[in-house]
Amino acid sequence: MKASQFFVSTLKEAPADAEVVSHRLMMRAGMIKRLGAGIYNYMPMGLRVIRKVEAIVREEMNRAGAVELLMPVVQPAELWQETGRFDKMGPELMRVKDRHERDFIIQPTSEEVVTDIARQELRSYRALPKNFYHIQTKFRDERRPRFGVMRGREFTMKDAYSFDRDRDGAARSYQAMFEAYKRIFDRFGLQYRAVAADTGAIGGDLSHEFQVIAETGEDAIVYCPTSDYAANIELAEALAPAEPRAAATQPMVLAPTPGRSTCADVAELLGLPLQRTVKSLVLATDERNDAGDIVGTTVWLLLVRGDHELNEVKAGKLPGFAAGWRFATVAEIEEHFGCKPGYLGPVAMPKPVQVIADRSVAAMSDFVCGANQPDAHLTGVNWGRDLPEPALVADIRNVLPGDPSPDGAGVLAIQRGIEVGHVFYLGTKYSAAMNASFLDENGKPRLMEMGCYGIGVTRVVAAAIEQNHDERGIVWPVAIAPFAVVLCPIGYDRSEAVRREADRLHDALAARGIDVLLDDRGERPGVMFADWELIGVPLRIVLSDRGLKEGQLELQGRRDAEATRVPLDEVEATVQARLAS
Amino acid sequence: MKASQFFVSTLKEAPADAEVVSHRLMMRAGMIKRLGAGIYNYMPMGLRVIRKVEAIVREEMNRAGAVELLMPVVQPAELWQETGRFDKMGPELMRVKDRHERDFIIQPTSEEVVTDIARQELRSYRALPKNFYHIQTKFRDERRPRFGVMRGREFTMKDAYSFDRDRDGAARSYQAMFEAYKRIFDRFGLQYRAVAADTGAIGGDLSHEFQVIAETGEDAIVYCPTSDYAANIELAEALAPAEPRAAATQPMVLAPTPGRSTCADVAELLGLPLQRTVKSLVLATDERNDAGDIVGTTVWLLLVRGDHELNEVKAGKLPGFAAGWRFATVAEIEEHFGCKPGYLGPVAMPKPVQVIADRSVAAMSDFVCGANQPDAHLTGVNWGRDLPEPALVADIRNVLPGDPSPDGAGVLAIQRGIEVGHVFYLGTKYSAAMNASFLDENGKPRLMEMGCYGIGVTRVVAAAIEQNHDERGIVWPVAIAPFAVVLCPIGYDRSEAVRREADRLHDALAARGIDVLLDDRGERPGVMFADWELIGVPLRIVLSDRGLKEGQLELQGRRDAEATRVPLDEVEATVQARLAS
Repeated sequence: MKASQFFVSTLKEAPADAEVVSHRLMMRAGMIKRLGAGIYNYMPMGLRVIRKVEAIVREEMNRAGAVELLMPVVQPAELWQETGRFDKMGPELMRVKDRHERDFIIQPTSEEVVTDIARQELRSYRALPKNFYHIQTKFRDERRPRFGVMRGREFTMKDAYSFDRDRDGAARSYQAMFEAYKRIFDRFGLQYRAVAADTGAIGGDLSHEFQVIAETGEDAIVYCPTSDYAANIELAEALAPAEPRAAATQPMVLAPTPGRSTCADVAELLGLPLQRTVKSLVLATDERNDAGDIVGTTVWLLLVRGDHELNEVKAGKLPGFAAGWRFATVAEIEEHFGCKPGYLGPVAMPKPVQVIADRSVAAMSDFVCGANQPDAHLTGVNWGRDLPEPALVADIRNVLPGDPSPDGAGVLAIQRGIEVGHVFYLGTKYSAAMNASFLDENGKPRLMEMGCYGIGVTRVVAAAIEQNHDERGIVWPVAIAPFAVVLCPIGYDRSEAVRREADRLHDALAARGIDVLLDDRGERPGVMFADWELIGVPLRIVLSDRGLKEGQLELQGRRDAEATRVPLDEVEATVQARLAS
Repeated sequence: MKASQFFVSTLKEAPADAEVVSHRLMMRAGMIKRLGAGIYNYMPMGLRVIRKVEAIVREEMNRAGAVELLMPVVQPAELWQETGRFDKMGPELMRVKDRHERDFIIQPTSEEVVTDIARQELRSYRALPKNFYHIQTKFRDERRPRFGVMRGREFTMKDAYSFDRDRDGAARSYQAMFEAYKRIFDRFGLQYRAVAADTGAIGGDLSHEFQVIAETGEDAIVYCPTSDYAANIELAEALAPAEPRAAATQPMVLAPTPGRSTCADVAELLGLPLQRTVKSLVLATDERNDAGDIVGTTVWLLLVRGDHELNEVKAGKLPGFAAGWRFATVAEIEEHFGCKPGYLGPVAMPKPVQVIADRSVAAMSDFVCGANQPDAHLTGVNWGRDLPEPALVADIRNVLPGDPSPDGAGVLAIQRGIEVGHVFYLGTKYSAAMNASFLDENGKPRLMEMGCYGIGVTRVVAAAIEQNHDERGIVWPVAIAPFAVVLCPIGYDRSEAVRREADRLHDALAARGIDVLLDDRGERPGVMFADWELIGVPLRIVLSDRGLKEGQLELQGRRDAEATRVPLDEVEATVQARLAS
């Protein structure tokens, strides 16, 4: 393709509201154009990348046996009322009325519609398993859309939904999607990790996020460099210390710690390592009656080591916490501990409070904690001697780099990542709500077992940039680059020789199936080079009169420090080899 | 592809609300599934056809130099307020508020958004011409959605928008799109006509509809079988009769015609041909002040021959009718003609009324018209003698088959058609409203000249079926068939020989790039054949143990009366030849 028949539009400066690098570079490279908050036009350069992402997704979904269909953007509210999501979902679900005042929604996902299709079409066990997917425009009315297409309101998503006869079948469908996703992300040419993720209210253990590695990612990914272990930090297990609890060696002593309300401050004052301190966190769970009124509250004391952080997802899974929890109010804290926050501890609490200790805390001896008196802590505290053993010992903290891997195969490391895909076992959540059943071999109705599998197509594009860029612009992996090769002729409009060779090479590369753009805009070399470095095309070929006289072209990969001179008759083979490597 | 990895779902009966054949067959063939009024899931079989239509459209748009982008489904109201369409458009424009109570619309088309892009991106004459298009989900909240995807609410449309420096450039862009559309519809393999169409309020003469010929079509297409002339009946010119007006031969006589208020009834009573009668139509135009109040009304008498029909679009173009017209009320008629409708005429009107005669009427002599007296007509009426010559003679009627073609190259015929494409010169309507200007060679700002070009992708699918079906089902043209060839093995699950040959042939045809489906569902031959005839796959190949023993397969085109036996080693070449023919 020639640039004159395409549309190239770059900006020197990104707009001020572009906070993250992918947003800035997508705006500057002319890939997107803002239409409203979180709503973007995908400009020709951006659409080419999106289409390449979609094509890879589609090929691998089909290869995995999923069947493509297309479900509507505007969906009747009735189905969303069947599952209760029409009322339960917040304002991120965009609701609209038609001319007859009937309720509709703009789809954020399509569980309801696909389950409606399944309950009508998949009536017999012989029709199962089946996996339907579509690649379609989605809308989520985010409270604060930002970061360009990373957290937009309108976006493109591939969402697939599997239907199986039983849990074993669902696990096989899940595994097939997991493998397909690995092929998809391999083909994108991105560094990624498939990490075990929390399954939330659904339960079960089948949930993985596909995270593109990027320093700017919002998610913390825990992995073991010497094994396959990888999990979202929400889920990653912190093992109990391998060493048993040491014996007490110190007496318990009241230490004045005026104004020192954090573990770090106390450790500093006392000249002790932070790891010897214990942090006290007071949580509360409310008991409600059928009308939703609070009829009782339980206060809990959670203990983690001073250098550790509470993992709120793990806390949510503690016995008694299933209906939700909150941090206790200052009034509740003072009522139970007789003391303001900052000096709390598990020793000699004025009112009985359930104590839940993290595994690390349970293994400590001679530790430091608050004294339940203002401006005072206790040192040399020991379980069993100074206070009862904790009511419950559990994993309630975030892992740290260097912690042992749960699979016993090394120590953990932590990376940042951007979640761009999610595979999820749904069980019968939707099939039960919508009575999506099939007749089994014995003619008995059974609920379908479901899974759902999403890839944020437009988010993949942004994540790819967060991972692959430098100070000059984007650095695309070949598979999803808008063009694989750009030809930059110097003097295309003046030199017959340059024009002839540029045209010939363009046609020759295109004939080999290489996605090539010939920049015939007539821009100065500096402008031309800066544009294509910004846009991030993997290979650039420069043609000039001088080079042609010597029978040579200049070839430069986007990450290369310098150009390489290549004899004319070797260019096509060299390009093909470079792109394949 | 194997049927077991795809999704085949046919119905014996269409739902009762499916009124037209394309709707019935799309439902029965499992191409679409209703989600709500005018909202359909495109099921896997239907989506394959849609994708083939889209691919052809995309290839030819690109070949014509148009550049693909993607504009959002949910669009901010501000732009639609700039052109006034946010307020002017009726409830078919779906309006929605976001969580911050800001107004948005669900796009029915994208003139506003693309013009907003153009005014920001195409700042110089060097950036012009440019043609942007997208293929995207549209929504129009039709008052009465019906006929399946033919008149749905959510649908897929390709809409392109050209931007030019001047009118000549716009005409070239228009012509390029016109030619691209011809290639597109040729490639679909559909019978169609590109017909000149009315340009409505825009004016100018650049507007063509692409109509798929079908008896069930809503539109009347006028064409000349012996020339290229083709126009929508709204536009098709009725020439003045070639013969001059004959001299008067009869005296004007008052004829009693009690209870005969139509031309047909009067002609029958008087024993005269209908062509000798004149129909009187009373129209009114209102004059309004700036506040929109009616400050004056003009009544007009339009005369067409008894066997002719008024063309309301042509009437709208008469001098004085630009601001709109209506039929006169009975009170207005009685005030001006002193007589109830059914007996009106241009002779001796009690109050002066402007008379506009169709060209045919102006050429009549000795004609019959109402007498402006109850239950009476006049015969032997002659212009100039019995009444003044008409104030205006104009073409105000629909043409009839047999009328002379306006290009002088034969006589006209009329067909029914379904409008699936429209190319339209917009001029500066949108660029003026949104101030989309560029700097010309002299650095002066000028408004861009625009054109818009639509193809209803999902409507093409329905129109193709309206044109191509029989009592057994759909008969797809090869180019847009869901599959080009279906292999129907008899005993695939029982016979090793059948299975081996079916698998081999499937792979061999696929390797030739032929879109082939192997029906491995294990259905009985009758069910299998009925399904694929209903779905309309162009070529069917039946493999059986008996045939294979004789070294033969059975090949049958969807329109063939009988199957042909083909030797095994000739099948691939024969299939390829049949598909190409």
